[in-house]
Amino acid sequence: MSDTLAVVNCSQLVTLGGAARPRKGREMRDLGIITDGAMFVRDTRIESVGVRSEIERLIDGDCEVVDAGGRIVLPGFVDAHTHPVFMGTRAEEFEQRAEGATYAEIAEAGGGIRSTVRQTRAAHEDELVAAGKRYAQWFLRTGTTTVEAKSGYGLSVEDELKMLRAIRRLNERTPLQYVPTFLGAHEVPDEYRGARRVEYVELVINEMLPRVKEEDLAEYCDVFCEEKVFSCEESKRILLAAREHDLGLRIHADQLSLGGGAQLAAELKTTTADHLEHTDADGIKHLARAGVQPVLLPGSVYALGHTRYPAAREMIDAGLAVVLATDFNPGSSPTPSMPMILSLASTHMKMTPAEGLTAATINAAYSLGRGHDRGSLEAGKRADFVIYDADDYRELAYFFGIEHAFAVYTNGRLAYRRDDKLEDEISA
Amino acid sequence: MSDTLAVVNCSQLVTLGGAARPRKGREMRDLGIITDGAMFVRDTRIESVGVRSEIERLIDGDCEVVDAGGRIVLPGFVDAHTHPVFMGTRAEEFEQRAEGATYAEIAEAGGGIRSTVRQTRAAHEDELVAAGKRYAQWFLRTGTTTVEAKSGYGLSVEDELKMLRAIRRLNERTPLQYVPTFLGAHEVPDEYRGARRVEYVELVINEMLPRVKEEDLAEYCDVFCEEKVFSCEESKRILLAAREHDLGLRIHADQLSLGGGAQLAAELKTTTADHLEHTDADGIKHLARAGVQPVLLPGSVYALGHTRYPAAREMIDAGLAVVLATDFNPGSSPTPSMPMILSLASTHMKMTPAEGLTAATINAAYSLGRGHDRGSLEAGKRADFVIYDADDYRELAYFFGIEHAFAVYTNGRLAYRRDDKLEDEISA
Repeated sequence: MSDTLAVVNCSQLVTLGGAARPRKGREMRDLGIITDGAMFVRDTRIESVGVRSEIERLIDGDCEVVDAGGRIVLPGFVDAHTHPVFMGTRAEEFEQRAEGATYAEIAEAGGGIRSTVRQTRAAHEDELVAAGKRYAQWFLRTGTTTVEAKSGYGLSVEDELKMLRAIRRLNERTPLQYVPTFLGAHEVPDEYRGARRVEYVELVINEMLPRVKEEDLAEYCDVFCEEKVFSCEESKRILLAAREHDLGLRIHADQLSLGGGAQLAAELKTTTADHLEHTDADGIKHLARAGVQPVLLPGSVYALGHTRYPAAREMIDAGLAVVLATDFNPGSSPTPSMPMILSLASTHMKMTPAEGLTAATINAAYSLGRGHDRGSLEAGKRADFVIYDADDYRELAYFFGIEHAFAVYTNGRLAYRRDDKLEDEISA
Repeated sequence: MSDTLAVVNCSQLVTLGGAARPRKGREMRDLGIITDGAMFVRDTRIESVGVRSEIERLIDGDCEVVDAGGRIVLPGFVDAHTHPVFMGTRAEEFEQRAEGATYAEIAEAGGGIRSTVRQTRAAHEDELVAAGKRYAQWFLRTGTTTVEAKSGYGLSVEDELKMLRAIRRLNERTPLQYVPTFLGAHEVPDEYRGARRVEYVELVINEMLPRVKEEDLAEYCDVFCEEKVFSCEESKRILLAAREHDLGLRIHADQLSLGGGAQLAAELKTTTADHLEHTDADGIKHLARAGVQPVLLPGSVYALGHTRYPAAREMIDAGLAVVLATDFNPGSSPTPSMPMILSLASTHMKMTPAEGLTAATINAAYSLGRGHDRGSLEAGKRADFVIYDADDYRELAYFFGIEHAFAVYTNGRLAYRRDDKLEDEISA
């Protein structure tokens, strides 16, 4: 197999290059598009990008040449907030919600996240890997090459470790790249409800975190900070303990109510604050001062049938380096598709298609400590790129509900290529 | 090639059978699911459906056997409202709307439908067919086997005929099946604005309709009845003229404002009234009395960033035989995906997944005069069916933003099959 690869004949090579830090405010509209662009890859890394004639000079007899056929080429999406390992779907609850039950009512009746926890606890690690592979395919098919991946459906020492080990195996065995996050504080499990809840916080801090660290199973720690889940005080204790173990910090904040989560994120200078549907001007000011990256998750707003989306425009105007992610999970956001998120961001949060792409690639990569390594197409970066069946990058957000990707490469190798019977037949 | 085909090993064969007329009210929840079902097809028609053992008895040596691998099988979607032939995208306007411009502002500045009209007029019929093939692929890939297809971007005698001829060619040359609708009254073209608008109505009635009939280019006539487009009086004249030419009647009613369109539909007993975002209780009562089928188009509500969806629950409760469709078009609903529409219907209109499927298959087929011929899987009907990569039909609406179809058959022949490199590699 050749160790060099050239991609030529790209109507738009959308590089998103040139950002030594996440892009803020108006910078989010700079996509660094090269018209009739091309790219030269050596082994797993990009060696150079440029106009076609520049790159064609580098091609010798051993080089594999990929003709993009006038299609557009972008960096793979970096999905910075997902829950991609779980057992069972929640299609039945989806039906109940269509019939009028609220997410809160279903949760109180023992459904919701608790039902996923029961099924995930009952599953063997191999079953979680098998289920996760299905979703890995979906991520790749929709153009995502890196996902942040949270635990949080185990909620016991062994079951949380089992989830994180499944994530590690998925990272090793699929072309999708996973960045693991420990989310033991996703919910208080049934056996600790009521008077024993404080014991659960102790369990997370004193038993789970040391074991996660010992096996080196996570890079980040996350907490669901919300009135009915973990208070700001509890969240703070857990995150400070995680920092002692050298984990990076993320936090679910202000999703269902305004509760001080954004201010806590700023106080702790967490890497990200995620959700933020109810964050107000004061919260935005705190995040801006502390340099916390907001991770916005419009898929969960949509799928819950809500209409209150996070204040993306105000955040961009305040100079925040906004990130978009799917929040892929079986309850509140059953979509693995970043193009679907781009559609929601433009139609319901008034982000431009360019701002959306920045939030879904280079800004997301920085939010995972990988801004130097991926999220854009430029010399030295990982060759994670996608050829889409479109003439213009804006089509990815504009035409919704379909899979646009024509071919997906991770680490310089082909991971997925659409190759169906139909195309030949119709075009004949 | 064998003229018989058996599909076996379907976890759910969702037949939607047994409806001699469109399903109303509670009937919309009856899906006629056969667990571990199978189906026997002779040539282009279904010969029988049943449990696996029943169908396996019919298989002889010449029969082609398709093992669905435990996946679910459904009738192909019938998309009863689309605009699938046009030139150019409107991705730039999509960006303008994200930046805050309204659909009405863009239209007044010469954009919107008028820009599609300019490009469609400038295109040769062959170019329209080529552009249409791309979208035919998208429809098939997302599980749709029949689309209603409107003209309406020509708005001159020759350009409307050109569009309808392009639709005829697409029907002949792709595995997708098209039901043509003449929509000359989609908008008043620039050259007839102001004082001359009445002349345009005359042109539609006295020149376009006779030519459409002469070439037998359409089965239905549709009008955009809306305060700023065609008044109820104008709409009525056009539809009555169309009836004289033996065309079936459809009407865009109450999309942007409450304007008497539902009452007009009832008065004329049109086959369908489409959109109905602003229809009130009185309008619903009229539609119910007259037996008009509502065609609901949540994709356009979503894509315009609106929040007012049509009152689907009230319509079902009033005994209407509701239909769902994509409204696929380059301006207000750039999605060809019926599963995306099912997602919107359940999350934002509180239709159950079962009601959604009924509205997207058998009820839609009846709304196009083809209820006897397709829209369900039962003996005598066309073998238009889809194998989806799912265990439960509810997943089609639940997991959104992806393409679920594994294989699509029209008239008993394979039209599309997902066959990508990824699946092998990951499952290895």
